[in-house]
Amino acid sequence: MYSYLDLKAFTKAVLVKIGHSSEDAETAATVLLSADLRGVDSHGVARLIGYVRLWEAGRVNATPNITVVHETPSTAVVDADRALGLVSGPAAMKVAIQKAKNVGSGWVSVKNSNHFGIAGYHAMMALEEDMIGIAMTNASPLVSPTYALERLLGTNPIAVAIPAGNQPPFVADFATTTAANGKLEILQRKGEEAPIGWIQDEKGAVSQDPHALKNGGALLPLGGDRERGSHKGYCLGAVVDIFSAVLSGANYGPWVPPFVSFLPLPSDPVGEGIGHFFGAMRIDAFRPAQEFKAHMDNWIERFKSAKPIPNEAQVYIPGDPERDMEAERIKTGIPLLPPVVKDLTEVGQKLGVPFIN
Amino acid sequence: MYSYLDLKAFTKAVLVKIGHSSEDAETAATVLLSADLRGVDSHGVARLIGYVRLWEAGRVNATPNITVVHETPSTAVVDADRALGLVSGPAAMKVAIQKAKNVGSGWVSVKNSNHFGIAGYHAMMALEEDMIGIAMTNASPLVSPTYALERLLGTNPIAVAIPAGNQPPFVADFATTTAANGKLEILQRKGEEAPIGWIQDEKGAVSQDPHALKNGGALLPLGGDRERGSHKGYCLGAVVDIFSAVLSGANYGPWVPPFVSFLPLPSDPVGEGIGHFFGAMRIDAFRPAQEFKAHMDNWIERFKSAKPIPNEAQVYIPGDPERDMEAERIKTGIPLLPPVVKDLTEVGQKLGVPFIN
Repeated sequence: MYSYLDLKAFTKAVLVKIGHSSEDAETAATVLLSADLRGVDSHGVARLIGYVRLWEAGRVNATPNITVVHETPSTAVVDADRALGLVSGPAAMKVAIQKAKNVGSGWVSVKNSNHFGIAGYHAMMALEEDMIGIAMTNASPLVSPTYALERLLGTNPIAVAIPAGNQPPFVADFATTTAANGKLEILQRKGEEAPIGWIQDEKGAVSQDPHALKNGGALLPLGGDRERGSHKGYCLGAVVDIFSAVLSGANYGPWVPPFVSFLPLPSDPVGEGIGHFFGAMRIDAFRPAQEFKAHMDNWIERFKSAKPIPNEAQVYIPGDPERDMEAERIKTGIPLLPPVVKDLTEVGQKLGVPFIN
Repeated sequence: MYSYLDLKAFTKAVLVKIGHSSEDAETAATVLLSADLRGVDSHGVARLIGYVRLWEAGRVNATPNITVVHETPSTAVVDADRALGLVSGPAAMKVAIQKAKNVGSGWVSVKNSNHFGIAGYHAMMALEEDMIGIAMTNASPLVSPTYALERLLGTNPIAVAIPAGNQPPFVADFATTTAANGKLEILQRKGEEAPIGWIQDEKGAVSQDPHALKNGGALLPLGGDRERGSHKGYCLGAVVDIFSAVLSGANYGPWVPPFVSFLPLPSDPVGEGIGHFFGAMRIDAFRPAQEFKAHMDNWIERFKSAKPIPNEAQVYIPGDPERDMEAERIKTGIPLLPPVVKDLTEVGQKLGVPFIN
């Protein structure tokens, strides 16, 4: 187990070493570690080496000039100037929040960015302002639309954070695929089969081989197959792609640059970097905040107390499992797999920032 | 086969007979028949008798005073005054569009309404203004959240319409469940089994009996089961419910009034009527519209030409199947099942509006 504060300090030190300001490194480390705290291990400090490699490959600008390049009172396009999405995401979300303060809601599409960690972090920034927060991003193409053999979409997550009163907030944060890539990696390590509906093989056939994705297969949109609504998951992933990248001028669909630095960039880009989309809506732009929160409490209490299926778990409110995990990991620490410790140790050695002993 | 214009004229005449203005009846008939044209037969003229029965039960106000009760430059809450959603939906969408003209985007939550037909119609209103349109609504509880035995959510559809240039627009319109109730009804008539993942029985067990819903079972959120991501479908349905009803002051979750007039209203309402949520974003609030449209054309062409899985259909662009259906039905007419013809004949007789011979 590694302490949250130690891992965050290490992450910050690494990001400063590659040229980030102390402030940007602090922001980025906070976003990255929020994934580990919330139990989304695939998107946390395990990815630090990936971000450093992107910087080594010249794809990350550690001293970005993040600017609003087009705006109206309620909308903006932000050019992230090749920043880490861990830095440009919070910056763009702040623009959305400021616009919501001014005119009720704010909507910001971001181009020229890189991966932004977990979507939920950005959406949750709105909560402390008594706003609903929305965050989404496109990502490297790993997903085949319904009936397609090719991978054309990323796992394109959507997060929506909604404040409540006495109850903790509602926080939905999910990939628009049946299962995220991180879950496949876990099955690979365990040598277990994947459930039907997660992946197709290189011929487009149903597959339970967790290695099928690596071998030319694809992740499947939420729904899994046409009969069970995969066209709806495809629609969701497509909307995320268009809002994040066609609105902003980032790369979309199969042109989205890969996260891993060893894969080549598409030779015919249609935009700049990857794209995100953020929204903030002030609660009291619709009705008095206290009234809304009282009804959100009622909503949450009613769903939480729903009669459960015998021998199944209690009904969850979105965000509850992650909040429980965060409370535990703040106390007991964050578990890291040996390959992650090895990666972090290597990164630390290379940059002269000793990893935690 | 029945001609679109004949069915629309009949629908309009019926709505005028129950007290609507000619203008409101024209709007409502256009929205209702758009479902038949687009092949969403469950949401079209087959429901006219249901709307009339709601009016008979005193639940529909044929002369509503639809008003904005709270607003900011980019947001509003609309009180539908118990209008047909077929009337209040377009009215509220117009408010969203006007706000988008003023400040870049507009977001409108509606209370005190009734069912609004297909979500896609309302979202598509934004297209002619070079805007992205969004529409969603909550609905009578037929859906159990993941792990729940109780029905707490409606099929809560989401529609997103996005303009393109030379290509037709992208129009996604889908229930946040694996399958809509209309599809179950078709299986019931045919005496066929439902695919796994559509429904659970009254004990919460997997069921393929298309009658299970009527017998105390439930529709399942998109994903079907926890392993295949039903918690994501649950999140989507929940967000639609909260945006439509907790933001506006309508009924939410299990308190949403049933569409069928013979079921009693919940005795302890938490709001007024059912709720909708609409959004409009001006394309040029993000980047020049021509630039955006050229990239949308490129997006659409790339996805449409995706390599298909052998022996499967070509990859669809959301909205294409419905557009093809509309082109066909405008020419050849709209097929109606005998029970629907019987219902319409009865409604016509009762109100003195002879149904088409």
